[in-house]
Amino acid sequence: MRRLLVTIRYDGTAYHGWQVQSNAVTVQSAVQDALEQTVGMRPNVTGCSRTDTGVHADMFCFHTDIGGSISCDRLVSALNAHLPDDIAAYDCREVPGDFHARYSCTGKRYCYRFYDGRSRNPFWMKYASRVPVRLDESAMNEAAAHFMGRHDFAGFCSVGSSVSDTVRTVSESCVRRDGDVVTFSVAADGFLYNMVRIMAGTLLDVGMGRTAADSLPQIVASCDRKMAGATAKPHGLILDKVFYGGDRFGVRKEEI
Amino acid sequence: MRRLLVTIRYDGTAYHGWQVQSNAVTVQSAVQDALEQTVGMRPNVTGCSRTDTGVHADMFCFHTDIGGSISCDRLVSALNAHLPDDIAAYDCREVPGDFHARYSCTGKRYCYRFYDGRSRNPFWMKYASRVPVRLDESAMNEAAAHFMGRHDFAGFCSVGSSVSDTVRTVSESCVRRDGDVVTFSVAADGFLYNMVRIMAGTLLDVGMGRTAADSLPQIVASCDRKMAGATAKPHGLILDKVFYGGDRFGVRKEEI
Repeated sequence: MRRLLVTIRYDGTAYHGWQVQSNAVTVQSAVQDALEQTVGMRPNVTGCSRTDTGVHADMFCFHTDIGGSISCDRLVSALNAHLPDDIAAYDCREVPGDFHARYSCTGKRYCYRFYDGRSRNPFWMKYASRVPVRLDESAMNEAAAHFMGRHDFAGFCSVGSSVSDTVRTVSESCVRRDGDVVTFSVAADGFLYNMVRIMAGTLLDVGMGRTAADSLPQIVASCDRKMAGATAKPHGLILDKVFYGGDRFGVRKEEI
Repeated sequence: MRRLLVTIRYDGTAYHGWQVQSNAVTVQSAVQDALEQTVGMRPNVTGCSRTDTGVHADMFCFHTDIGGSISCDRLVSALNAHLPDDIAAYDCREVPGDFHARYSCTGKRYCYRFYDGRSRNPFWMKYASRVPVRLDESAMNEAAAHFMGRHDFAGFCSVGSSVSDTVRTVSESCVRRDGDVVTFSVAADGFLYNMVRIMAGTLLDVGMGRTAADSLPQIVASCDRKMAGATAKPHGLILDKVFYGGDRFGVRKEEI
């Protein structure tokens, strides 16, 4: 048996997130179906995170243990032949047996997109959350900077999450506009449940003038979910990058 | 009756082009359906061009004559309420009675996109033509420059077209890469049938090393369809901009 780390991208519109659920089509089950058709058995696959229903990924990694001698390149081609059009594999590499797609991950970057054009845009409907007013992206960018660094993000975690350690380190947090699309990019060593979408919802309040940009430090410090904004809609969110740090696994940061 | 110029964008994937056809769903018929639901009658609509099956538009204009007193803003909102998700109106203005969406048009800009990443990309499948090898975008850009200026583009027109004057003036023609997406942008005072897709197919040959960039002047000068490349697939094409020049119609270039 070899442990393989496979990288895919997917349009999450049609899926109930990554994680297998009974009676729902998930990316994980689609990947398992394709692997089964490729290698003749149904292997377990472990993802780098559990994206929610409707969330997209431009880079998502999973590990799986398979036998046989199929090469990594061949596996990518065969997977793509069996995967539906909205999921595609683009990298595969052999990793040590103790490598873990989730626990070995040293960071991730997400993008959250708002669309604030006057009318809906067919090209962005599935990939950006539509906002009926023009956003103040400068104020949002100023606010986003306050997420940078090591903080207790307990206030940016959906109620009901069982995580005990809610401290995370944010290494990138900015907002930029490109035409009618306003993108919030955020990288961290890890994210709490719904953290990016709650951050995005809070920045949305800033962009709409309902929250002052300089009140962000106070909102973060409160560790109170009620102080932060609403959880922004899932379809604006895309997992943009997954980092595996260090040389130990032969997979360096930014390398994949 | 007032003559209105309406601007829309659409994802052409599900449509048999703009022009009404019997037994096929077209953008024009979808627009007429929405107008009928909005103003209570089915007006004629005249488009700025006839896009082919699967071709997209980020900007497409049509004119129509309607009675009643509905404001332009209200018409846009009402149209969007009745249009399917893949078509959206975003501008409407009153124009003189002799304004014509097609004949008053002084130029258009199209983009044609190739995707040359190693695996298919779910986010670009409908909007870029996939190429299995890495393209040489510098050679393509060099070749594209030869389209600039006033030329007889008879060799870049699908056989069977009945247009007599095949001279057009190209004011922009360049190729740039953004990651795995190579975009050919071309603006002209008008385009022959399939002209952009044949230009794109010819540049594809250059990008793949099958045609030398400096042979473009000769290919253009030959006026021979057989000298140019194949007609590139429709889904990579998007009508990007429509120009109406001069002050006569109160619609200035780049203004819409």
